[in-house]
Amino acid sequence: MSTHDLIRQLRESNSSKIVMLVADGLGGLPIEPGGKTELETAHTPNLDALAAEGTVGLSIPVAHGITPGSGPGHLGLFGYDPLVHNIGRGVLEALGIGVEVGPRDVAIRGNFCTIDGEGHVTDRRAGRIPTETCEKLVAKLQAGVKIEGVEVLVEPVREYRLVVRFRADGLGDKVCDTDPLSTGLHPIEPKGDDAASEKTARIAAEFLRQAKEILKDERPANFLMLRGFATFPKIETMEEVYGLKAVAIAVYPMYRGLARLVGMTVVEPGKTLAEQIEVAQANWDSYDFFFIHYKYTDSTGEDGDFARKVAMIEAFDAEIRKLRALDPDVLIVTGDHSTPSRMRSHSFHPVPTLLWAPATTRPDLVTTFGERPCIQGGLGQFLAKDLMPLAMAHAGRLQKFGA
Amino acid sequence: MSTHDLIRQLRESNSSKIVMLVADGLGGLPIEPGGKTELETAHTPNLDALAAEGTVGLSIPVAHGITPGSGPGHLGLFGYDPLVHNIGRGVLEALGIGVEVGPRDVAIRGNFCTIDGEGHVTDRRAGRIPTETCEKLVAKLQAGVKIEGVEVLVEPVREYRLVVRFRADGLGDKVCDTDPLSTGLHPIEPKGDDAASEKTARIAAEFLRQAKEILKDERPANFLMLRGFATFPKIETMEEVYGLKAVAIAVYPMYRGLARLVGMTVVEPGKTLAEQIEVAQANWDSYDFFFIHYKYTDSTGEDGDFARKVAMIEAFDAEIRKLRALDPDVLIVTGDHSTPSRMRSHSFHPVPTLLWAPATTRPDLVTTFGERPCIQGGLGQFLAKDLMPLAMAHAGRLQKFGA
Repeated sequence: MSTHDLIRQLRESNSSKIVMLVADGLGGLPIEPGGKTELETAHTPNLDALAAEGTVGLSIPVAHGITPGSGPGHLGLFGYDPLVHNIGRGVLEALGIGVEVGPRDVAIRGNFCTIDGEGHVTDRRAGRIPTETCEKLVAKLQAGVKIEGVEVLVEPVREYRLVVRFRADGLGDKVCDTDPLSTGLHPIEPKGDDAASEKTARIAAEFLRQAKEILKDERPANFLMLRGFATFPKIETMEEVYGLKAVAIAVYPMYRGLARLVGMTVVEPGKTLAEQIEVAQANWDSYDFFFIHYKYTDSTGEDGDFARKVAMIEAFDAEIRKLRALDPDVLIVTGDHSTPSRMRSHSFHPVPTLLWAPATTRPDLVTTFGERPCIQGGLGQFLAKDLMPLAMAHAGRLQKFGA
Repeated sequence: MSTHDLIRQLRESNSSKIVMLVADGLGGLPIEPGGKTELETAHTPNLDALAAEGTVGLSIPVAHGITPGSGPGHLGLFGYDPLVHNIGRGVLEALGIGVEVGPRDVAIRGNFCTIDGEGHVTDRRAGRIPTETCEKLVAKLQAGVKIEGVEVLVEPVREYRLVVRFRADGLGDKVCDTDPLSTGLHPIEPKGDDAASEKTARIAAEFLRQAKEILKDERPANFLMLRGFATFPKIETMEEVYGLKAVAIAVYPMYRGLARLVGMTVVEPGKTLAEQIEVAQANWDSYDFFFIHYKYTDSTGEDGDFARKVAMIEAFDAEIRKLRALDPDVLIVTGDHSTPSRMRSHSFHPVPTLLWAPATTRPDLVTTFGERPCIQGGLGQFLAKDLMPLAMAHAGRLQKFGA
């Protein structure tokens, strides 16, 4: 029996409130051998109090040694096995810029390129055109492309990157990338692996034919290539699995989109964590589960800025008291992955995680929140996908299994 | 390859003795925030000595966040995945009152109810009749019901609850419950999902027809309803999986029945833990594996009596020396689940577990037995079903895997 089947069988409703506060890329590394991590360096009296009263541990986002992107990282936290539920690249790119993706859609990553008179690719990134040029060209494409029976959406991402979305019935996503991966070659013709994907490939070929015409006098971006064709993943909603009415309070489009994939309601979040918590408060009676996303622990880690990541953790800590004032039954503080500023990237390291549930927490000996203390915590090391069943249990929302 | 396939491939026999001492519902919670649990509060010099010499950890009975009943809890300890091997409700109820269930049987939970002149249910529990009335009515049913080719057994449980067992060839258990779940409705006619279950449904319908006649002048229990139809689960015995001759020394019927399900021999246990250990001693040469069950850590937890649970743990501890005197090769002390007296119920919290095997234990730094120390133990946190392979290994009963 799958964990989701088990939960569907055992779940029951009550008036409990679960808050999952995700500090993106929370985990880190020391800069100096033997030094402290960003989280250990930060002064975090409020998180420390939660750690002392609750229990802590380390979340393994996907599997040992696997560095997740934001998609798998968040799916794990929402209780979906990221190795089973795959979100295609095109869909993630679309979500990242706030393009909605639904069951009739195929989302595709595009990049402008330069081709010569024979149609050979001479620059796969079109000289990294500035974003404003990208926006202008995308507007021309959006205005110019017409395909019978297909709703086409083209949106700029950044520099040479864009998103294309086809909306029609019966589209598949098993379509090859058209990028030949080196210069001097023709782009590859889109080709589908099955009937539905062949339909998508025909639409993509027509899209590229019209685009070539529309862009033919542009320089350096006189064509584009498509890759990462992806349909909306078939995934049960959190309400279907857990019986939870879930709301996402996230500032960045990617995380709003990921939350939408699992059926969360997405509300206007405000701009700061303080405002996000106010939004949670304003919606307190309407939802059972509150996903609150904080980006800046990740972005400062990606920048390699240790001190700034420390400061962002301290700013995060400062809002914890407002969250406690809402009096949730279960409060989880975790991250979707680690982003050590020393590595300037996502990493595979387990993520410090804190579970605070006054009525049911079995305390451990840990009194501060940090990577080293979490090793000693009562949650042990666990897969991220095990966190939601624990949250449900602490919320009193799971009946006994068997007699 | 499944764990059981692996063990069958690697197992070998020797003269080692494994004792699994199960303190039912052992794990607990502090009453006061930051306080000690029942086990941490209890004075347990003998368990502490085992913890110091052996190694400890925390057993997750079924999966993170899942609260097990006694059935899944014990199956896990015996090394069977409780999510794969499901024991039906009727069988568990029968085992709980000492009714044997075998391969030709269907066991069913029954409850007396009240119906009006039109046959509508007016009270689903027949006014919670006293157990003595239940016993009298069950005796009338047992004496009165005759079904050609079927051996029918009816046994009282408590108040309005009873167990019915049909014994015949080719019975299935995919039969719907007859309880309509609210008053004012007719009981549901038993209906089978396949040919074997249809046979059971026909027997059940005839049983109910005769029962209605027999009970027609009784008040308030003038009928009964059937639910939780269950056949004997197809499960390999511990001898088939591990090559172990296993004996159960358990006072309560439920645990004797669960042990029988996995093929253990069930012997007369005496009444106290001291007597159970004497029984183990008397049977020492006849078996390889000794399951000794202690109930009172669970029942005091269910009563919400923290002090009494502490006392029961101390009484348990006092008998450990007699068990050590038997000189087992492997001694495991654990529980099938936690029963925190604060929650007055089974819970999902991991269970303190101790493995003592003088010849092969790798010691950890833990010197006392309790929930917090177990977090730091050498066994880490593990699924209950992994305990038997560890026991087999420490008993020198598993060969090397691969060259």
